[in-house]
Amino acid sequence: MSILETFDERISSCHSMLCVGLDSRVNLLSPDFLQSDTPQLDFNRWIIDQTAPYAAAFKLNTAFYEARGAQGWAEMAATIDYLNRHHPQAITICDAKRADIGSTNEGYVKAVFDDLGFDAITLHPYLGHEAMQPFLQRNDHACIVLCRTSNPGSGEFQSLDLAGRPLWQHVALTVRDEWNKNNNCMLVIGATYPDDLRRARLLVGDTLPFLVPGVGAQGGDVKAVVQNGVDSRGRGLLINASRSIIFADDPENAARTLRDQINGAR
Amino acid sequence: MSILETFDERISSCHSMLCVGLDSRVNLLSPDFLQSDTPQLDFNRWIIDQTAPYAAAFKLNTAFYEARGAQGWAEMAATIDYLNRHHPQAITICDAKRADIGSTNEGYVKAVFDDLGFDAITLHPYLGHEAMQPFLQRNDHACIVLCRTSNPGSGEFQSLDLAGRPLWQHVALTVRDEWNKNNNCMLVIGATYPDDLRRARLLVGDTLPFLVPGVGAQGGDVKAVVQNGVDSRGRGLLINASRSIIFADDPENAARTLRDQINGAR
Repeated sequence: MSILETFDERISSCHSMLCVGLDSRVNLLSPDFLQSDTPQLDFNRWIIDQTAPYAAAFKLNTAFYEARGAQGWAEMAATIDYLNRHHPQAITICDAKRADIGSTNEGYVKAVFDDLGFDAITLHPYLGHEAMQPFLQRNDHACIVLCRTSNPGSGEFQSLDLAGRPLWQHVALTVRDEWNKNNNCMLVIGATYPDDLRRARLLVGDTLPFLVPGVGAQGGDVKAVVQNGVDSRGRGLLINASRSIIFADDPENAARTLRDQINGAR
Repeated sequence: MSILETFDERISSCHSMLCVGLDSRVNLLSPDFLQSDTPQLDFNRWIIDQTAPYAAAFKLNTAFYEARGAQGWAEMAATIDYLNRHHPQAITICDAKRADIGSTNEGYVKAVFDDLGFDAITLHPYLGHEAMQPFLQRNDHACIVLCRTSNPGSGEFQSLDLAGRPLWQHVALTVRDEWNKNNNCMLVIGATYPDDLRRARLLVGDTLPFLVPGVGAQGGDVKAVVQNGVDSRGRGLLINASRSIIFADDPENAARTLRDQINGAR
């Protein structure tokens, strides 16, 4: 079974396309957590335990951990270790947005796949698939390639026209045709561009699942994401929400509600 | 004085365009260093002390430190602290190749500029300058944007033709016109594409200095880099070498020789 099939089975068996983003900014944690020696780890465990029943996946963005240096890195490692021990079925995504030249990427592969133990990593496409081989050849792990990102200014390069197609569509087609030899690639398509989500799905059919950030705090519409983003089987999506769940007054309720909204739109 | 002018003055005063890349892969360190509790830090101090007289800059690639987890991160931090205390004039570059959406980048800004204390960071262009504001607005630090990278497969997207120009040229022009409002941007142009180095210089004139990786182990020709890459004043280059210096039998001699080759070609 390919890693994408494993992810698909996980999404089916837990009846959820929700990915909870552990963007655990330390300056937003409540005083109870800040008194701990491991505030981000303690907060993450608290969030994980109450949201895991409603989530197919958890995503950690490295920026929020690197902002606390070696201590943050250690708490990111302890968080993923906790997930792997207590919620082994959950898909784990390292939202690192890495990409270097070939041999250098081996350092990131070791860090993210082997030592930290994530299932998947997000990657920039700009250096091309030759450079990404150290990630791509790990067919037991997934490579989630930035394609049409959710930020307001993402069109600066992504929308540049090449022979009638914007750059992001060339990225989508190239990942489909060249990067995905091991059936382990996904695309990042932002919820904030629902028309492009529909176009992306038409371009790649059922071959590539999408990780969709941008619902919740960034304003993307859940119904439009589901209706425009699913593949011909009504699948192929992981929909991420971070701040709107983890900093909600009631994170468990926020996760359950969003999972139900997603399922209601399928 | 802008940060780019500060860099320019440093390059002039030390009579060197050389950047030494501390790609300190732990599995290539000699047994003497591996017996230490801090092998990468000890190795880096040894390299720094013997090459600093010949180098304008030092560049640390985060991949080689993250590969050792929190301990590697701590040794990267201790290395940059050592540089800032003992060689405060040296330009320090964090070759992290980061780029996330706007607010998330604040975590990387804190990590790389404020806590680690680097002068500059390398960035992917794909998300556009709106997302990069947390880096770009720090006019006391430099943003070095990936443009034409040195790897063999860099053309997959970078050479795609958009209205008569390859994508990498649109990146160069957009950085010149939109990203560089604080006069703190540079471009990465690989030594392995000397014709494109010449074209890049013609495009941006004297506005943007280049960080040029790819001489040494990757095979780029020093003379071609200098002759094609300098601006109208014979300046505007930092030429990086990593493996060919730090893993040479005599790193001091390798650094001095490369500096002299660079100066001989000016």
